[in-house]
Amino acid sequence: MNLTTSPNAQQLLSKTQTFIKEHILPIEQELLANAHHQGPDWKNWTIDPRVEQLKDKAKEMGLWNLFLPGTEHGLSNIDYAPIAEATGWSLLAPEIFNCNAPDSGNMEVLWKYGSEEQKEQWLQPLLDGKIRSAFCMTEPEVASSDATNMQATITDNGDTIILNGRKWWSSGIGHPDCKVTIFMGLSNPEAGRHQQHSMVLVPLDSPGVTVERMLPVFGAYDAPYGHGEVVFDNVELPKSAVIAGLGRGFEIAQGRLGPGRIHHCMRLLGAAERALELMIKRSLDRNAFGKPLANLGGNRDIIANARIDIDMARLLTLKTASILDDVGVFGAMSEVSQIKVVTPTVACRVIDQAMQLFGGMGLSNDTVLTGLYAYARILRLADGPDEVHRGLVARLELRKYK
Amino acid sequence: MNLTTSPNAQQLLSKTQTFIKEHILPIEQELLANAHHQGPDWKNWTIDPRVEQLKDKAKEMGLWNLFLPGTEHGLSNIDYAPIAEATGWSLLAPEIFNCNAPDSGNMEVLWKYGSEEQKEQWLQPLLDGKIRSAFCMTEPEVASSDATNMQATITDNGDTIILNGRKWWSSGIGHPDCKVTIFMGLSNPEAGRHQQHSMVLVPLDSPGVTVERMLPVFGAYDAPYGHGEVVFDNVELPKSAVIAGLGRGFEIAQGRLGPGRIHHCMRLLGAAERALELMIKRSLDRNAFGKPLANLGGNRDIIANARIDIDMARLLTLKTASILDDVGVFGAMSEVSQIKVVTPTVACRVIDQAMQLFGGMGLSNDTVLTGLYAYARILRLADGPDEVHRGLVARLELRKYK
Amino acid sequence: MNLTTSPNAQQLLSKTQTFIKEHILPIEQELLANAHHQGPDWKNWTIDPRVEQLKDKAKEMGLWNLFLPGTEHGLSNIDYAPIAEATGWSLLAPEIFNCNAPDSGNMEVLWKYGSEEQKEQWLQPLLDGKIRSAFCMTEPEVASSDATNMQATITDNGDTIILNGRKWWSSGIGHPDCKVTIFMGLSNPEAGRHQQHSMVLVPLDSPGVTVERMLPVFGAYDAPYGHGEVVFDNVELPKSAVIAGLGRGFEIAQGRLGPGRIHHCMRLLGAAERALELMIKRSLDRNAFGKPLANLGGNRDIIANARIDIDMARLLTLKTASILDDVGVFGAMSEVSQIKVVTPTVACRVIDQAMQLFGGMGLSNDTVLTGLYAYARILRLADGPDEVHRGLVARLELRKYK
Amino acid sequence: MNLTTSPNAQQLLSKTQTFIKEHILPIEQELLANAHHQGPDWKNWTIDPRVEQLKDKAKEMGLWNLFLPGTEHGLSNIDYAPIAEATGWSLLAPEIFNCNAPDSGNMEVLWKYGSEEQKEQWLQPLLDGKIRSAFCMTEPEVASSDATNMQATITDNGDTIILNGRKWWSSGIGHPDCKVTIFMGLSNPEAGRHQQHSMVLVPLDSPGVTVERMLPVFGAYDAPYGHGEVVFDNVELPKSAVIAGLGRGFEIAQGRLGPGRIHHCMRLLGAAERALELMIKRSLDRNAFGKPLANLGGNRDIIANARIDIDMARLLTLKTASILDDVGVFGAMSEVSQIKVVTPTVACRVIDQAMQLFGGMGLSNDTVLTGLYAYARILRLADGPDEVHRGLVARLELRKYK
Repeated sequence: MNLTTSPNAQQLLSKTQTFIKEHILPIEQELLANAHHQGPDWKNWTIDPRVEQLKDKAKEMGLWNLFLPGTEHGLSNIDYAPIAEATGWSLLAPEIFNCNAPDSGNMEVLWKYGSEEQKEQWLQPLLDGKIRSAFCMTEPEVASSDATNMQATITDNGDTIILNGRKWWSSGIGHPDCKVTIFMGLSNPEAGRHQQHSMVLVPLDSPGVTVERMLPVFGAYDAPYGHGEVVFDNVELPKSAVIAGLGRGFEIAQGRLGPGRIHHCMRLLGAAERALELMIKRSLDRNAFGKPLANLGGNRDIIANARIDIDMARLLTLKTASILDDVGVFGAMSEVSQIKVVTPTVACRVIDQAMQLFGGMGLSNDTVLTGLYAYARILRLADGPDEVHRGLVARLELRKYK
Repeated sequence: MNLTTSPNAQQLLSKTQTFIKEHILPIEQELLANAHHQGPDWKNWTIDPRVEQLKDKAKEMGLWNLFLPGTEHGLSNIDYAPIAEATGWSLLAPEIFNCNAPDSGNMEVLWKYGSEEQKEQWLQPLLDGKIRSAFCMTEPEVASSDATNMQATITDNGDTIILNGRKWWSSGIGHPDCKVTIFMGLSNPEAGRHQQHSMVLVPLDSPGVTVERMLPVFGAYDAPYGHGEVVFDNVELPKSAVIAGLGRGFEIAQGRLGPGRIHHCMRLLGAAERALELMIKRSLDRNAFGKPLANLGGNRDIIANARIDIDMARLLTLKTASILDDVGVFGAMSEVSQIKVVTPTVACRVIDQAMQLFGGMGLSNDTVLTGLYAYARILRLADGPDEVHRGLVARLELRKYK
Repeated sequence: MNLTTSPNAQQLLSKTQTFIKEHILPIEQELLANAHHQGPDWKNWTIDPRVEQLKDKAKEMGLWNLFLPGTEHGLSNIDYAPIAEATGWSLLAPEIFNCNAPDSGNMEVLWKYGSEEQKEQWLQPLLDGKIRSAFCMTEPEVASSDATNMQATITDNGDTIILNGRKWWSSGIGHPDCKVTIFMGLSNPEAGRHQQHSMVLVPLDSPGVTVERMLPVFGAYDAPYGHGEVVFDNVELPKSAVIAGLGRGFEIAQGRLGPGRIHHCMRLLGAAERALELMIKRSLDRNAFGKPLANLGGNRDIIANARIDIDMARLLTLKTASILDDVGVFGAMSEVSQIKVVTPTVACRVIDQAMQLFGGMGLSNDTVLTGLYAYARILRLADGPDEVHRGLVARLELRKYK
Repeated sequence: MNLTTSPNAQQLLSKTQTFIKEHILPIEQELLANAHHQGPDWKNWTIDPRVEQLKDKAKEMGLWNLFLPGTEHGLSNIDYAPIAEATGWSLLAPEIFNCNAPDSGNMEVLWKYGSEEQKEQWLQPLLDGKIRSAFCMTEPEVASSDATNMQATITDNGDTIILNGRKWWSSGIGHPDCKVTIFMGLSNPEAGRHQQHSMVLVPLDSPGVTVERMLPVFGAYDAPYGHGEVVFDNVELPKSAVIAGLGRGFEIAQGRLGPGRIHHCMRLLGAAERALELMIKRSLDRNAFGKPLANLGGNRDIIANARIDIDMARLLTLKTASILDDVGVFGAMSEVSQIKVVTPTVACRVIDQAMQLFGGMGLSNDTVLTGLYAYARILRLADGPDEVHRGLVARLELRKYK
């Protein structure tokens, strides 16, 4: 198992880190504060012009669309993983490098399964960073941990299809540039368990699509992205809006989720590294009872354990990326689930400990910690809750002996 | 050790529970949503008129100021503790029964240490629920875990005193009715380590007092209470504003914190009980993979452990209350710290597990869980971080063998 | 809930503690070492004569059979519980006060369910400490966590019954004075799920009873008690050997296990207290890197958490004892299971941490820690594994909302 | 970072696994039971002749001394690591491949630092598997966590040196073939902190060397190896017995401990894998409440977490091996300590959970679990306790920001 990245990827990593340090971190606190003050009403959300400038700059420097193998700048999973980690240091970074969820996953889906027409209409502007997209899968009425629960419907109407249903946790749908969403629903209820669902491209301005509200995470709305609740009420679309054909939803979903989970996990490790750095600096700078916090009680144990946990989770994620590159997602089913269990938990723990060391400040918005925590916490649910992934890992272990 | 409550207290508990169930829970979600939408600008925060109506109702029913032994309705700690737990079920409840922090602690201080004049001016309106108060102790520039770090000053100026310093995490200071704060600062730097500080009553409209902003917890501003950052710039007050005399700040603080911590801990257990109830109901109502969540994976272990942890933490808190009643706070130093370590941790864990069982909904504001979590999480820091309390418990254990 | 013990019980507790300190602890290390050196061949196991002398002394002082309510010296559960804790400090103590498992449980069964003849033949010598007994329930071939799995049979043969089956983990059966065992087996396979089993008194010298070996726990044989594997091969006994009648095994078992679990749990807390004392003393006496261990790293956190965990588990156990006294075991089903989950886990953790602080010495037999650990670890399985008790607690929680 | 092993190493791994499966596992239970029955008196300990036969066979097959880079069959750390893991499946295996501690470390020391004479006299017979050796470092009177505490002395007596002191936990010293020990003591008390100690080769039959007893671990004596307590009373030796020169003890120790810790950690992962296999098989074969244990409660979570933890710990250990190969132990200080913290903890947890799933049987000697547990538990102390290694990891983290 070779976890070495190519010289090219190392250079890109180094450039990315420098870019973040020089261009993103200095304005991060201000932009996050602005975003935070935009409040729940997403219709008024705006984009700071500096974000677009930085996107242009990233594009110029070749730090653009690195996540998508096969495209101009696209890297393999093992090469891209450390760059994903770097972008996890700041919640602002992924968009600037055009590699944020769910756009990256959507682009991957279109790249692999889209028709020429779909690619032209939606993939190209996404690759160019001109528009943004959402992904509508989770539903309020059913446990999303079991995707076959899905109740939204896609009705075959001859030349057209008709969509109905209510979705939520559609991330990114509040963004002013969000123009399209992938909608997943039940199209073939009579087919086999994993051939019943389809994915459809839905322009957000289609009649019948209503974004009802944004859902906060721990009270924060994550502007300008947002997590939306969306109603699809008899949305009629040409059949060409279906991706790859009716009934192929699960097949597409599975391919999509492998790399996407690696991106999330590596970003979370970047977030954890940042929390660790903040925690260490604080422990050296702040005094109580006549000593720096680093010399009090169990604080060094906390720091050591954080280093160990992060390093182990990273190795597991890199191993997973390497298998994905070598044999594809179906050779890494257990590993993908393993990292999905481990990294959000590690990130939550490390960030929470950093908060504790910062005292009240750590719970406010004066540091990036609460934002990072919300991201890590929601990833214990998004793309499958811990419980489901643990169940999959166990099932594959048991199968070895059956 | 008798943990039985008196028949009178049992009756009051039952009335309180019924009151909460009938009058508070039905309007809770609406009021919390309103509060949440009030955003960070505390100057516009308003009180829902129903809160005042419910306060009147509670007063009429004798469910008022139960926390303060010695007053008309005041109960012993062991009698009040289960009522505190009941009020922990809803973040709205404590104010309605006039027993919320920091008002309850401030009233206690004034009751025990206030001059007649202070009692008339501030205690009476607080007891009547006409005004609210804050407590200014924590400072941004120093580790509050070590209270002797405090840098704010109280200068003796003959007939007056002059206050200077910056405070934050002054809870309740954003409330429209908040009229006064207790300010703690360094007045006698030459005295012994625990005789250097004093407490002063500061009307919020005193020249030189500026509330600069409210601090969010996980992005939520906790309107209409808020956690303020406040500057005291040459605030001049008559010496009669000092509570009990210069140099007695720590003495007062210590007496104040015993019952206050019991209140917090019992409320947290109420919050944990509510989370457990929500979790259980959800686990019975929601299905995945063809079964209610209660029958999947380790969910029953989570429920059982929650029950055990809550019950143990409650017994420890009741024991502490009982010692406080019997021999006072100095006979329960270890126990007070023990419950301060245990209950926020138990509450955080149980609430977090409830969130996980609720999926994305649990992280939004559609349940009370995020609000309860923020309350529990901040209590791992407020009134002394876990680390300091664990240190105290250990010191007292070691002392037995030295 | 009144957890206060009676003045009489307090006096007995004090006497018991003094007795242990003055008479047992001084010879403990020697006796345990002797026991340890007796090895696996139980047929040669002997009793140190000092044990019998101490039993006589305990009898004289009225510290005898305190565990059995209704008998001459018997105390209520709440009164006896702290004495049980005291006896948990030394693995030698319970026998000396005639309150060790399984004899205490067996005496309770005979006291409550035995015929006059059974009482005369077996209960009296047990109460007198002249003989000892075992309890044969667990079987190697089936999961004992589910007692209805039991395969050993009791066949009705008219005037006699015939027993067949293999049992193991029959504690105390290696003791030279062990003369009788209670055997539990399937007698009425057609009856309802909890009316199929019976308990029978089997003299150990009955033809067909073969003790095949003693089972070590972590390599130690726990001489002179031992945990035996026993074969019952067509053992024919008069029907009068049945306790209370065929089909009543589960009914008896359930009554037996309530107080017995309280005894175990309180003894484990005594064991944990002793480990904590050893750990604290060691942490004060031993230096590394120029400081006592107490001042290094997270050791104080460990000590504080041990104190908190022990105190909480004790309160929960006392509460359970109190309910047992007030309303009987069926009013404390959840609580009995709760303490059965919590106290072995707390004891294992605290003892393991004490071992760690002692370094290699802690893993040897030079301290009592390994013996205490083995006792605590086996109690995570004996009398129902953690998993089953957690399951019961959860079921009762869920039932509240169904 | 390339964690791939060479084709040669992969072949050797496969042969080793087959050898263990075909030749060691079938006789393991019998040999371990025999060893267990040998009891505490090491002077009577014997070696089963099959062990010598298997050693010959391993030698023939080229599965001999694989651990020592630079020798005939010696592999790099990354190549040897998976083989070390394979040998961790059975406590019998390491000796059979001549790669058990402390012989492997002693051979490494002699290979790197020994004089020609020392190599001839001691290294060659060790490499040939003709004799065995011990390592005497730990002392009962001082905390070994701080090696500079060591009190045993090495006095320069002109042509000779004189050793005095008491050592314990000298592993392997009970073996009938153990002929020599490396002794570490204080020789140059005036020198710098890490130049005060020396290592000396002491024939076990030297006058003044007395093995006083063997120390049990959880009651088991680990025959025929044993952990001895040894007195050195004016042991006079020629100066040529000193390894590499006086004052170089720490320098040698540090080089020795890098690879040795990797061996221990990989073996522990092998032990954990075996426990996981046993646990899974048991969970499929055993039923309770009408289901296989695998389908009850949180058992699948336990299995999944075990898989994840083992895989992460392995990756971290392989990474450490790879750094050791590339830049030596001083480039892997943090990593060596990280794996020393993580792997014994993971192994203890997984083995303990396997015990729990096996019920009482898991605590007896009927499975290998207790033996594996004792090995894993002692490794939380041997070669530096967790606490010291965590402290080192933290110090290196803090140093990055100082």
